[in-house]
Amino acid sequence: MSQVYPRVALIGLGLIASSMFWAMKRRGVAGHVTGYARSAQTRDTARRIGLCDTVCDSAAEAVRDADLVVLCVPVGAMGVVAAEIGPHLKPGCTVTDVGSVKKTVIEAVAPHLPEGVQFVPGHPLAGTEHSGPESGFASLFDNRWCLLVPVEGTDPQAVETLTTYWQALGANVEVMDAEHHDLVLAVTSHTPHLIAYTMVGVADDLRRVTDSEVIKYSAAGFRDFTRIAASDPTMWRDVFLNNKEATLEILGRFTEELFALQRAIRTGDGDHLHAYFTRTRAIRRGIIEAGQDTDAPDFGRAKTER
Amino acid sequence: MSQVYPRVALIGLGLIASSMFWAMKRRGVAGHVTGYARSAQTRDTARRIGLCDTVCDSAAEAVRDADLVVLCVPVGAMGVVAAEIGPHLKPGCTVTDVGSVKKTVIEAVAPHLPEGVQFVPGHPLAGTEHSGPESGFASLFDNRWCLLVPVEGTDPQAVETLTTYWQALGANVEVMDAEHHDLVLAVTSHTPHLIAYTMVGVADDLRRVTDSEVIKYSAAGFRDFTRIAASDPTMWRDVFLNNKEATLEILGRFTEELFALQRAIRTGDGDHLHAYFTRTRAIRRGIIEAGQDTDAPDFGRAKTER
Repeated sequence: MSQVYPRVALIGLGLIASSMFWAMKRRGVAGHVTGYARSAQTRDTARRIGLCDTVCDSAAEAVRDADLVVLCVPVGAMGVVAAEIGPHLKPGCTVTDVGSVKKTVIEAVAPHLPEGVQFVPGHPLAGTEHSGPESGFASLFDNRWCLLVPVEGTDPQAVETLTTYWQALGANVEVMDAEHHDLVLAVTSHTPHLIAYTMVGVADDLRRVTDSEVIKYSAAGFRDFTRIAASDPTMWRDVFLNNKEATLEILGRFTEELFALQRAIRTGDGDHLHAYFTRTRAIRRGIIEAGQDTDAPDFGRAKTER
Repeated sequence: MSQVYPRVALIGLGLIASSMFWAMKRRGVAGHVTGYARSAQTRDTARRIGLCDTVCDSAAEAVRDADLVVLCVPVGAMGVVAAEIGPHLKPGCTVTDVGSVKKTVIEAVAPHLPEGVQFVPGHPLAGTEHSGPESGFASLFDNRWCLLVPVEGTDPQAVETLTTYWQALGANVEVMDAEHHDLVLAVTSHTPHLIAYTMVGVADDLRRVTDSEVIKYSAAGFRDFTRIAASDPTMWRDVFLNNKEATLEILGRFTEELFALQRAIRTGDGDHLHAYFTRTRAIRRGIIEAGQDTDAPDFGRAKTER
């Protein structure tokens, strides 16, 4: 695989940025990669583990001469970072981000970018419940989707090159508009996370069932929720504050449906429950056929030899 | 490992019963195992794959001379099965079950058992999203919990032998009362399942986001819900109809918390969200330390080499 960008700058060095770095190294996707993180401790860690070819002590220094700048900070910090790097960007370079919300990120970042710089917002749909510079790995994006959300007036060539870049990192790329992105993610990610956080919070809070009981007996279903609810709190706070509208819409639909099922339980309407539970099986089948999950029982946690 | 029961009968031949059979064979826990399933197709499958030493064509025949009878049918079918086998049980034998609800199962089963038969209700907290006679495997219960819920007047020796049996199948055993069991399971299993079913139903139902989008972009969190929501519909219908009170109590707490978080999103209260999301991380840590899940990112779906 040949080089896509001679120089890439990663701003923010968490799970996504560190995975991008190892994925770039795996196939020689970039000539030279600089990195910057606000915390000195994170920069030290990055230097220690060889994350980035050069770790810089300022964002301005990191983006100098970069052909691609990737904003890998929480959604709520994007505007501040854009203001910081704006004056130091190389003319004609591409700026992208990896934020889970697109409308508010575009509003926060675009005004700070000088003319001639190409802004192509992006969102790789990949992650784990771990965070920080040491949690990254090269295959995180393999066969995952990366959504690009170009703004009006962007040079199609810049979008095309960024597409090639993400494909070289292992991802499949799709283009959609910001508003639709935010709604789709409210369904597939943001609302599920909020619900998982809520369920884990309830379990933790209950006086009549102890935490140690919840922990011991979690294999009955609960532990899948706890994995999601172990994700980075700052990232998720920012997601909900910045995708308020779509999340509240899906939450509204969710509680409506939940109340209908709750009513079926209360009135003993077994047919309603059975029909509902049968319908949801088909979606699972679709996800497995689309290669987005394993069919192995329990996500392959189970060793199924007889 | 030496034999715990000379003869064991499995009534119902789904995921749990078939896993019990392979786990018994793994360590010689039983001398001879009979099996019965209501469906002729399931019995044929069982014979074909060597599930059970003898597959019988009636429950009465299967339980004859058995020292341990295990009811492995959906919770709603327990009473009917108990009535069927009651007159054919060997005096002094032990009857247990594997139902996810205990109070109503005890009410349904106990009246049908003749005096001298020991009834020790049980519930192994293990399973996968797959069902049927071909989905079982020997290690399903390894390091999982099995809860025993003895009824008043049970011979302690019967409880002790059943404990030894489950330990020989790989499980850890704990004893608790039926009411507490049903509440604990409402938290760790029943409510999480209902919520997962609901979220998957909402996604399927939404006009503005297509099913193919939901499926493609599920890796962002949603797919963990779909695994849970792919579980057996009949089993789960019966669970909710039979653990109505506790499930509705926990659902009430859940919606209360969800509304508080929803309000925090609407009013932009980032501190509330951040504090909530930080608290839930600790529970995940506890589950991993208790050996009830893997710390590998994404349940080990991710290959994390650099």
